[in-house]
Amino acid sequence: MNRFFDPKSIAVIGASPDPMKGGHSILFNLLQGYRGTIYPVNPKYDKILDLSCYPSISDIPGPVDLAIVFVPAKQVPSIVRACAQKGIPGVIVESGGFAETGDEGLALQQQLVDIVRTTGIRIWGPNCMGLVDARRNYVFSFLTPSVWNFGLTPGTVSLVVQSGMLAGGFLIDIMSHGRMGISKALSIGNKVDVNETELLEYLIQDPETEAIGMYLESIVDGRRFLELCAASPKPIAVLKGGKSRGGARAALSHTASMAGDHAVVRSGLLQAGVVEVDDFRQLLDVSRGLSMFPNASKASRGRTAILTFSGGAGIVSADFLEANGLELAELSDATVEALRRIFPEWMPVANPVDLWPAVERNGGQIAYETAMMAVAGDPNVDMVLLHLYSGGFALNFDMKRAIDALHRAKKPIFAWLLGDRDHAQQSLQEIQALGVPVLRELQRAADVMKAVVERGRWVSQVGYRKPDATFIELPKHMAGLLGNGRGMLDEHLSKQILAEAGIPVVKEQAVNSAEEAVRAARSFGYPVVLKGLMRHVLHKSEQGLVRMHLRTEPELRAAFEEMAGRIDNQDTIVVQQQVEGRTELIAGIVRDPQFGVCVMAGMGGVLTEVLNDKVFLVAPFDEVQARYMLGRLRSRKILEGFRGEQPLDVNGFARILVRMGHLALSYPGIQEMDVNPFIVKDGQAIAVDANIVLK
Amino acid sequence: MNRFFDPKSIAVIGASPDPMKGGHSILFNLLQGYRGTIYPVNPKYDKILDLSCYPSISDIPGPVDLAIVFVPAKQVPSIVRACAQKGIPGVIVESGGFAETGDEGLALQQQLVDIVRTTGIRIWGPNCMGLVDARRNYVFSFLTPSVWNFGLTPGTVSLVVQSGMLAGGFLIDIMSHGRMGISKALSIGNKVDVNETELLEYLIQDPETEAIGMYLESIVDGRRFLELCAASPKPIAVLKGGKSRGGARAALSHTASMAGDHAVVRSGLLQAGVVEVDDFRQLLDVSRGLSMFPNASKASRGRTAILTFSGGAGIVSADFLEANGLELAELSDATVEALRRIFPEWMPVANPVDLWPAVERNGGQIAYETAMMAVAGDPNVDMVLLHLYSGGFALNFDMKRAIDALHRAKKPIFAWLLGDRDHAQQSLQEIQALGVPVLRELQRAADVMKAVVERGRWVSQVGYRKPDATFIELPKHMAGLLGNGRGMLDEHLSKQILAEAGIPVVKEQAVNSAEEAVRAARSFGYPVVLKGLMRHVLHKSEQGLVRMHLRTEPELRAAFEEMAGRIDNQDTIVVQQQVEGRTELIAGIVRDPQFGVCVMAGMGGVLTEVLNDKVFLVAPFDEVQARYMLGRLRSRKILEGFRGEQPLDVNGFARILVRMGHLALSYPGIQEMDVNPFIVKDGQAIAVDANIVLK
Repeated sequence: MNRFFDPKSIAVIGASPDPMKGGHSILFNLLQGYRGTIYPVNPKYDKILDLSCYPSISDIPGPVDLAIVFVPAKQVPSIVRACAQKGIPGVIVESGGFAETGDEGLALQQQLVDIVRTTGIRIWGPNCMGLVDARRNYVFSFLTPSVWNFGLTPGTVSLVVQSGMLAGGFLIDIMSHGRMGISKALSIGNKVDVNETELLEYLIQDPETEAIGMYLESIVDGRRFLELCAASPKPIAVLKGGKSRGGARAALSHTASMAGDHAVVRSGLLQAGVVEVDDFRQLLDVSRGLSMFPNASKASRGRTAILTFSGGAGIVSADFLEANGLELAELSDATVEALRRIFPEWMPVANPVDLWPAVERNGGQIAYETAMMAVAGDPNVDMVLLHLYSGGFALNFDMKRAIDALHRAKKPIFAWLLGDRDHAQQSLQEIQALGVPVLRELQRAADVMKAVVERGRWVSQVGYRKPDATFIELPKHMAGLLGNGRGMLDEHLSKQILAEAGIPVVKEQAVNSAEEAVRAARSFGYPVVLKGLMRHVLHKSEQGLVRMHLRTEPELRAAFEEMAGRIDNQDTIVVQQQVEGRTELIAGIVRDPQFGVCVMAGMGGVLTEVLNDKVFLVAPFDEVQARYMLGRLRSRKILEGFRGEQPLDVNGFARILVRMGHLALSYPGIQEMDVNPFIVKDGQAIAVDANIVLK
Repeated sequence: MNRFFDPKSIAVIGASPDPMKGGHSILFNLLQGYRGTIYPVNPKYDKILDLSCYPSISDIPGPVDLAIVFVPAKQVPSIVRACAQKGIPGVIVESGGFAETGDEGLALQQQLVDIVRTTGIRIWGPNCMGLVDARRNYVFSFLTPSVWNFGLTPGTVSLVVQSGMLAGGFLIDIMSHGRMGISKALSIGNKVDVNETELLEYLIQDPETEAIGMYLESIVDGRRFLELCAASPKPIAVLKGGKSRGGARAALSHTASMAGDHAVVRSGLLQAGVVEVDDFRQLLDVSRGLSMFPNASKASRGRTAILTFSGGAGIVSADFLEANGLELAELSDATVEALRRIFPEWMPVANPVDLWPAVERNGGQIAYETAMMAVAGDPNVDMVLLHLYSGGFALNFDMKRAIDALHRAKKPIFAWLLGDRDHAQQSLQEIQALGVPVLRELQRAADVMKAVVERGRWVSQVGYRKPDATFIELPKHMAGLLGNGRGMLDEHLSKQILAEAGIPVVKEQAVNSAEEAVRAARSFGYPVVLKGLMRHVLHKSEQGLVRMHLRTEPELRAAFEEMAGRIDNQDTIVVQQQVEGRTELIAGIVRDPQFGVCVMAGMGGVLTEVLNDKVFLVAPFDEVQARYMLGRLRSRKILEGFRGEQPLDVNGFARILVRMGHLALSYPGIQEMDVNPFIVKDGQAIAVDANIVLK
């Protein structure tokens, strides 16, 4: 990959002297920062922008590390072949006109795939904006040269984007607003060869990148992608386009990308410690915040001190904390004491800390510095949200000492800044230079704080785990069935397999007579449930094939006789202990096209079905990961012992989920599995109904 | 109120020649725009800023319409008394040091209350920033004069804010960024007399105000406030501070405001057609959007065309639509045809409409104008989200004709703008001047679009209703009990009262013997439930006082004997028909300190208890309002016939809620009421358990 990022020589195929053409922009942009050898290629010209121009690739005298191709799509395959012949290791194809334009383009793209396979040349693109490196002033892109009016501000965040706009126009937007610098911006387009996963791997190693922000419409190699994320010491934020049905359809036509089920993607990212965002600037703000406070596990409780000049803004900030899973810190006595000394006597000290009267009395320097130093030393404070104002003047006090103290105490600090356009802009840059992310909206400040805390929580609660898959040995006949069977296994058989895999299932027995039924019931204890397992009947209750609350032998006998009349000879009748418990859970197995075997878990009943409150775990995973993800259910309160019920043994349920993952990994014949419900009795989840679907 | 807004003469008490003092700023600000007579009052000076200064109020020669007071709190009561004596009708007290500062300040504030009561003088404040009128260039405030560096841009949105910052620093922020103008900004502080409700009433009448944005920490006269909102032809947006526990506590100390239960406030605002927002700039953006497209009932389906220059931004916008209850429009054949003519052949036409290839081929003017004219005439499109870019250049095509066409078609149009700092700023102002709200974040664009659509929905589905309360006549003994009784009524009695109020309740009968129980069961049909109603036992199930699933006479007899042994002589045993149904609802009555009688409704079970998914209706309300609010439940899908169940007769349930409201309004003795659950059988909600709590 290094040849893409640090080539000693670059050929520009499709170079042009016409300033309105992309082939001109590429050359122009190279000349601004790139110091290696540049070979324009175009048979029509001898010189372009004072550089010798070559009629063809084979005419280039020296070795070439990288070719940037910007010619009509139809010519691209032969050009790339020529590059391969010349021994150029990598090509960035920036031309559009491939899979995103229909069948003809798709065929051209397929040719590129073939060339990669047969020649070993690496292709970046097509249909992309290439590569920008703001640290080196490299712009390997047809990006409009007006970007140089604003300059490339070097920073620590690198971006990988599956959208030309983000790497192009948006870059100009960011740079001109001076809100943040970047390290690298990589536009990957149709990713016929080089993809987000490979670039992620590169950036994780890149010493000039401290956090990574990605806009993705699809994830090509999902499992590898998540493995990289989960092992990355650098925080990663992802904006996934195509979450909605309409968005997914649009993504398919935009970069010919297939967006997976977003509920699975969301869970996969969470499990891997990635912060998910929803908007473009939010991606930048969050990435920048994460780069400033990566892996802030010390702040993972999120107890925040709000230091403000405005009571109203303090109140609204407190509301945002709660809405984002953070909390108002209870200030220690020492902090209260320190603040009392600068506060007027009538003013009670509380968090949010309204500094205005103290500013009026002591000036901004003393008021803010006293407060910041106090919370820096306060064991009850994990992080700080600072409200600042520079209207009609830039910030007229020096915060360096206090900010340094907070940095030393490893307390993330964030600023919300109000003020007039120019002074606020100046203050923003001064404060950010001191290592404090500055946001102009409270909502966005809350987004960034939440991201830093969530990353810190993940690092401290989950961390860089790489659990192994344990093979689950099943009895031969079961293994054989899972290997060769087809279709859906009945409830009884499914639960027998679960039981062999170490998953607690309800006591039940298949019975052939009322006599057998009564014996079974006696051994389990009443009440019992009687079920008729008819093949192809999924909704047994609706078909009268479930009789619950059977409390006595006569009731059971009567129910058996009736059930025997309803079902066919080959079908099974099962007597089942009736498990009493008000909490129901569900779990299942899916094979996701992007991530492979995933275990789904959620609350039973309406919560999952109506509110879609469920999580997915990419297998294999361990109990720690399962517990973490169960903690992300909106309805997790139920698991903690709702309505005086005994709380769920979460570790036990986590073990069950781990085993379901192992089972599916051990037996690829298992296509799907649903356990619905697990009933929680005395804190233990017991599988009461289940089915396994084979290929 | 007009004397506050359009006084012929103003006295400034506490006027000062010292430019660092607020008493100077007030005078300075008046001199910039106010053309009436100004009387500075300060015994120390003869002249301030070339104006004759008077030693005391009584020395002022002419009549005074308004006094602005900015002196230490302790002097305020005597000053206000002097104003009253001088015959000044209204005073704006901008000084702080009142209820927000503890007991001493509270006593001073109480003196102001007394002066209002005894003299009839109107007081605005204290602890406030006063009044700004950008249309007239009036600044009746100690706001820093640096605001004049940026000028007051006149606009159509008026603000009422319970926070000095919002009227002060934030105003400078807004004006300097040139994003929007305002009409009036009113800072109300501790609202000892003039409050948000009175100002709202004024602004609804004010011909210079087209939409109203409010930041409130409390609502003094909640019922009147909501009545005004519900009758206002002008859209209103509210940011309520103190939604969280921490925020509410901070609000209490900030402006001595008591924040009510926010779940009730949220519902009250919804019911009254108010749009709720969470952040400060969001309040402005949403208010501005609402002012441009007030009451857009034609757009209430929210079918949106996205016209973009970036596939990625189109995809993310589509995701935002879905997340905000809007949808992607299906373009009509005519629109598709029109677009096909400007698109390259390979490019399929879809929504989001990616215009980039058409811009490359035809230029921005033709591409954008063609698309906008097409969707203006498209019956499947209710509104338009336009993506624009001006980087390195301002928008170089003219959109007036196309925007006018959309305005004529009554299709709200919103723009998301990307670009470099200065050119984007210029384009923003040009486009907004054409009547299009421009947003810099997609999330914010979605917020504004959602607000416009929700207001449109409310106008078309609910509108300006003012339902009457119907008195519910109960039998004398019940009315007497509700009038004079105390404590909690038992389930049986509570349901008898509900039944009299026309609310369907389960068939049940109090029984004294097994014989009676059996007779009752026979008349209802089995299965039945047996309940022992012990006084002071709330959780009957936990105490073994509920026996369900009784299917036969012997079971019922056995259960009766056992129950009789458990309860005391005076307690009641009730036989109840067992209502079978999987959907449970709950409803209740609360008396809210801000809004009075409210009826709560939600889904039974975990949804309300764990996820707090419930709505409140301020009584009296009618069925239309009840249906609208039930439609705001997150779990409303259940009501629509979930899992193949018959859908709820929503009209029937709405009628029940209306009657609960009437019942509580008719009998003030009813302090609380809970019906939990209603079970839905054959689509009808039947009250199965209930209790009424009297004073």
